[in-house]
Amino acid sequence: MIIVMKNSATEQELDHIVEKLQEFGFATHISKGTEKTIIGAIGDERTLRDRPLSSFPGVETVVPIVKPFKLVSKDFKQEPTVIDINGIKIGGDNVGVMAGPCSVENRDMLFKIAERTSKAGAKILRGGAFKPRTSPYAFQGLGVEGLKYLREAADEYGMLVITEMMDPRDMDDILKYTDIIQIGARNMQNFRLLRELGTIDKPVMLKRGMCATIKEFLMAAEYVCAGGNYQVLLCERGIRTYETETRNTLDLSAVPVIQSNTHLPVIVDPSHGTGRRDCILPMAQAAVAAGADGIMVEVHNNPEEAMSDGDQSIVPDDFDVLMKRVRIIAETVGKQL
Amino acid sequence: MIIVMKNSATEQELDHIVEKLQEFGFATHISKGTEKTIIGAIGDERTLRDRPLSSFPGVETVVPIVKPFKLVSKDFKQEPTVIDINGIKIGGDNVGVMAGPCSVENRDMLFKIAERTSKAGAKILRGGAFKPRTSPYAFQGLGVEGLKYLREAADEYGMLVITEMMDPRDMDDILKYTDIIQIGARNMQNFRLLRELGTIDKPVMLKRGMCATIKEFLMAAEYVCAGGNYQVLLCERGIRTYETETRNTLDLSAVPVIQSNTHLPVIVDPSHGTGRRDCILPMAQAAVAAGADGIMVEVHNNPEEAMSDGDQSIVPDDFDVLMKRVRIIAETVGKQL
Amino acid sequence: MIIVMKNSATEQELDHIVEKLQEFGFATHISKGTEKTIIGAIGDERTLRDRPLSSFPGVETVVPIVKPFKLVSKDFKQEPTVIDINGIKIGGDNVGVMAGPCSVENRDMLFKIAERTSKAGAKILRGGAFKPRTSPYAFQGLGVEGLKYLREAADEYGMLVITEMMDPRDMDDILKYTDIIQIGARNMQNFRLLRELGTIDKPVMLKRGMCATIKEFLMAAEYVCAGGNYQVLLCERGIRTYETETRNTLDLSAVPVIQSNTHLPVIVDPSHGTGRRDCILPMAQAAVAAGADGIMVEVHNNPEEAMSDGDQSIVPDDFDVLMKRVRIIAETVGKQL
Amino acid sequence: MIIVMKNSATEQELDHIVEKLQEFGFATHISKGTEKTIIGAIGDERTLRDRPLSSFPGVETVVPIVKPFKLVSKDFKQEPTVIDINGIKIGGDNVGVMAGPCSVENRDMLFKIAERTSKAGAKILRGGAFKPRTSPYAFQGLGVEGLKYLREAADEYGMLVITEMMDPRDMDDILKYTDIIQIGARNMQNFRLLRELGTIDKPVMLKRGMCATIKEFLMAAEYVCAGGNYQVLLCERGIRTYETETRNTLDLSAVPVIQSNTHLPVIVDPSHGTGRRDCILPMAQAAVAAGADGIMVEVHNNPEEAMSDGDQSIVPDDFDVLMKRVRIIAETVGKQL
Repeated sequence: MIIVMKNSATEQELDHIVEKLQEFGFATHISKGTEKTIIGAIGDERTLRDRPLSSFPGVETVVPIVKPFKLVSKDFKQEPTVIDINGIKIGGDNVGVMAGPCSVENRDMLFKIAERTSKAGAKILRGGAFKPRTSPYAFQGLGVEGLKYLREAADEYGMLVITEMMDPRDMDDILKYTDIIQIGARNMQNFRLLRELGTIDKPVMLKRGMCATIKEFLMAAEYVCAGGNYQVLLCERGIRTYETETRNTLDLSAVPVIQSNTHLPVIVDPSHGTGRRDCILPMAQAAVAAGADGIMVEVHNNPEEAMSDGDQSIVPDDFDVLMKRVRIIAETVGKQL
Repeated sequence: MIIVMKNSATEQELDHIVEKLQEFGFATHISKGTEKTIIGAIGDERTLRDRPLSSFPGVETVVPIVKPFKLVSKDFKQEPTVIDINGIKIGGDNVGVMAGPCSVENRDMLFKIAERTSKAGAKILRGGAFKPRTSPYAFQGLGVEGLKYLREAADEYGMLVITEMMDPRDMDDILKYTDIIQIGARNMQNFRLLRELGTIDKPVMLKRGMCATIKEFLMAAEYVCAGGNYQVLLCERGIRTYETETRNTLDLSAVPVIQSNTHLPVIVDPSHGTGRRDCILPMAQAAVAAGADGIMVEVHNNPEEAMSDGDQSIVPDDFDVLMKRVRIIAETVGKQL
Repeated sequence: MIIVMKNSATEQELDHIVEKLQEFGFATHISKGTEKTIIGAIGDERTLRDRPLSSFPGVETVVPIVKPFKLVSKDFKQEPTVIDINGIKIGGDNVGVMAGPCSVENRDMLFKIAERTSKAGAKILRGGAFKPRTSPYAFQGLGVEGLKYLREAADEYGMLVITEMMDPRDMDDILKYTDIIQIGARNMQNFRLLRELGTIDKPVMLKRGMCATIKEFLMAAEYVCAGGNYQVLLCERGIRTYETETRNTLDLSAVPVIQSNTHLPVIVDPSHGTGRRDCILPMAQAAVAAGADGIMVEVHNNPEEAMSDGDQSIVPDDFDVLMKRVRIIAETVGKQL
Repeated sequence: MIIVMKNSATEQELDHIVEKLQEFGFATHISKGTEKTIIGAIGDERTLRDRPLSSFPGVETVVPIVKPFKLVSKDFKQEPTVIDINGIKIGGDNVGVMAGPCSVENRDMLFKIAERTSKAGAKILRGGAFKPRTSPYAFQGLGVEGLKYLREAADEYGMLVITEMMDPRDMDDILKYTDIIQIGARNMQNFRLLRELGTIDKPVMLKRGMCATIKEFLMAAEYVCAGGNYQVLLCERGIRTYETETRNTLDLSAVPVIQSNTHLPVIVDPSHGTGRRDCILPMAQAAVAAGADGIMVEVHNNPEEAMSDGDQSIVPDDFDVLMKRVRIIAETVGKQL
């Protein structure tokens, strides 16, 4: 950590900080430049982050040098992590495709969608059983019944299941029926939950919080890894900006940026990321072109009747087109579906 | 709800929407203007919000007319809600002051801070027992022991207790020791939790999510009220913007805007809202000048040694100055401490 | 325009607005729904936008129905505009590639870069002669000398020239040497300048302001078209968000959204859009996969010595790879380079 | 400047950077910590900012130590700058109040407003003669005629004039009639214009760009000072965020943050900052409570008929209340109107 002193800082203020740093167990190195005096604190910087150094008298700014995350970083593990469940792979050269309805509405629609999406090449079935809804007056999901339908449909069509867990008290139910646990954007910084996910042995897909920085996103993954579970997928699903034409702004440059920082796979969700049906196809293509390790797409056989997110779902016929194009684009950038 | 048609929309597309709206139980009114054809849907608009109308062929935009919240609105209740606990009041003409350390670190520091802040006029003691930390390697709070200290210190100095609940499984412990339950910014859209808070009989202070709109903030309060608990305080604590000089951007104009929408009291937290000690005094003053119904301020007797948030805590002497000024400002805008 | 009344609005307030609207030349239609009374104002809505209707007593909100832009909209012209200069086309099925250094530093480097980029397939040479720099102490460009080098290099290698105009007083010089005038993000709402661009007969490429909404972006284009110049290209170059890992957040979903609104071509600039060399290749690929009508890429033969933007330039060898991939991706989405 | 190396950086990469830094005229200091190797570059850091160091092989991040601005900083001049025109002061302990209509619409309305606002205590008359409008179809201002009315009205009521310059070609006209030149948010980074403002001998008020950081805002002021004109006022007028209830988000914490960085006075504009009439009074109060050196308020004698910004103007009677309260608040925080 580097502490930059104000020009007006006194010798006493400098000494005070040096003493404190030494008290905290750090060696110090003072460097007086042409304009600024700086103190280098040498030791395990992560233990210093909570210290209110920037409020010490005489301090102008405090500059961290070491990244706050460790286990998820490329420094820790250089080769990309490949999630492999029953031979279905995500990460490295493998682009995973997750598709299905926003909510499981009933058994029949789910089977229809699983049939079409698996036929088009998707190997992972998505669907919500417990739904986080912004209005207390809206449809809240089928619960455990929905989980069962997911399992059945996935088994029928040789797919894996991914579904969202909203509350730690649903953990046992969800673990029973799903292959990958999805953590929604709103829970990305539910630290108790993240800690508990570190103790299970199923892959976890973390969705990026609507206003989470990439650093915070990686720190959330660090929480899970710190508990011992290294099977983490990171899902970019749009961030909140001032632009209102799309529900969120899909931050596709996050894909190469995250990949330059971590060995974990990066998934992109163009449905939530844009909230507009007419953006899903172009943004799914763009995600794979940007090097994403997977995409998650909402597909509904009858979006006009969907009980949630109908605006951001595509029909199976469009999904066929999407898969054809995405396959070529993946190969163009050195990957495969 | 108003559905605006594209200029290129066909008669069939128009008919299709009208039929669907009628099927959903709405009366319709078509108006052909000089440039646009619009459909007015007459009925309970809230039930129509989940329908993917904007994706119907021929639709340009869908415009909601009715606000999504009901119970929290001024239309529902015009006079301001006053939270009154043992004669300590927040709301209406009463400005409530909440002060205390970020985390309860030990019994002694808490008593010292309670003594000074109560003497200066604060009537509500804040302090965290369970701490949400962005790093898995940081201090996570004293837990139930911290809750006990809070209760003891508050009782000793005639104060109320406010503390944060992070996980629904802590509800019983927290209800036992606190007067007001605080819900952190990261849980503002934890809808299961909100629903459960609707069933308790203690006031709840919701902190605004870091990227929550005012509408979403009010919808979160609506969740609590919908469960039957109308004692809700709304706390503005800074929103995430591109500016990095402050940890967050304190959105003080949210105070008059929220007050124009709801009868619930609005609190401002300049400590989290700015993350800078030198901003707390000016922004606390500004909050009361903007008409806030209360402020929440982090006070620490020795910020340099604080285990969390030392950078955004002020010392008791500064808190004395703050209280003196804030008292005059409150009177200037027709309120009282 | 729809005016939504407050529940508490009186008959007098309603009458007052109706009278005013009629005074402004609008027919009115009052509709009393189950919860809300609304007034429809029928007439040329654009003339009503400046009226402070939302501040009239009794008004809750004012909802525009008609889009503020006209000439740039698809309602006005359905088929895509193709910019065609000497047979080099941008728009429709044609993906235009603009490449070159940030600043023209000297004649020699520019010729080297033009040679390599034209060989790889780029048909438009970019380079700055007048540079907008955030620091008064930084390199400000070669001025007219730079413009001459651009023209010479482009002519030598059969390319077109695009360069930025920062000040209307440079118009004559720039018109003399360039084929397309670029207007930088900071001038996107320099309305006097936009008006003057409407009177020239060369294509104009508007870069999206760093915090401009898509609507504002289209309104800026409307200014140019309103002056009579319909040859406008729109360039997405990243918007400002809270994320700091990239200089800006490249808003690729703006591509399909803009295309759904206008007939004008949309270009993407991954260099300014991300500010990171390692993001240029993936984001250029993603831009074309999202359906962009062109890309603008900074290429420098020796980025380590670049006088500006070296961090966001790629070398000619990487540009060769980019062109190969982008060609395949363009074909996959039904376009051609 | 500090260059942080990747863990994977080779000795050769380290040597390469050290050589380059020395070539650029910098002394270097290498420090190998427990986790990271860092290079300190000692010399005039401002000349190094344009070098693409972060793209050099082996580099993880580049950390600036010295602030990019100099002349505007408190390091350069500690005591606050007081703008004094004919004995009317802004800065230091003096809170300046600027009031008047958005646009000068005619002579009569301007005189009426000047009479009322001066009577209430405002000493500076604001009003636009050249208006930047987002629509090409809207009222664009009276031009020079408007400037004359401003001068006459101000002289009649013993006030100063402040008005906006949009285009450098209007400089002579504007200098003739105004006391303070206002530069609008959209021109905050019009660097050519800023440079020219550095050569005049009248005070300049820079409005913060809608998405300008505080650092960029100060750099814009640096441009003016670098030309020799140190009479610069900085005006916070709201930044663009995701919140849409207000036109912009007024960033009041910018007041103490800017004041901690610079000696220049800080003004707040609650009219543009919120775009809502009901927010002007509370936010003007809040601005002064936050320590602002002045406020700028839109006052209109008949907002319903205003040709621009009627929604964000208050009437003279409300302005009277505002002035009474603001006077008390100013005194409470140690200032005077």
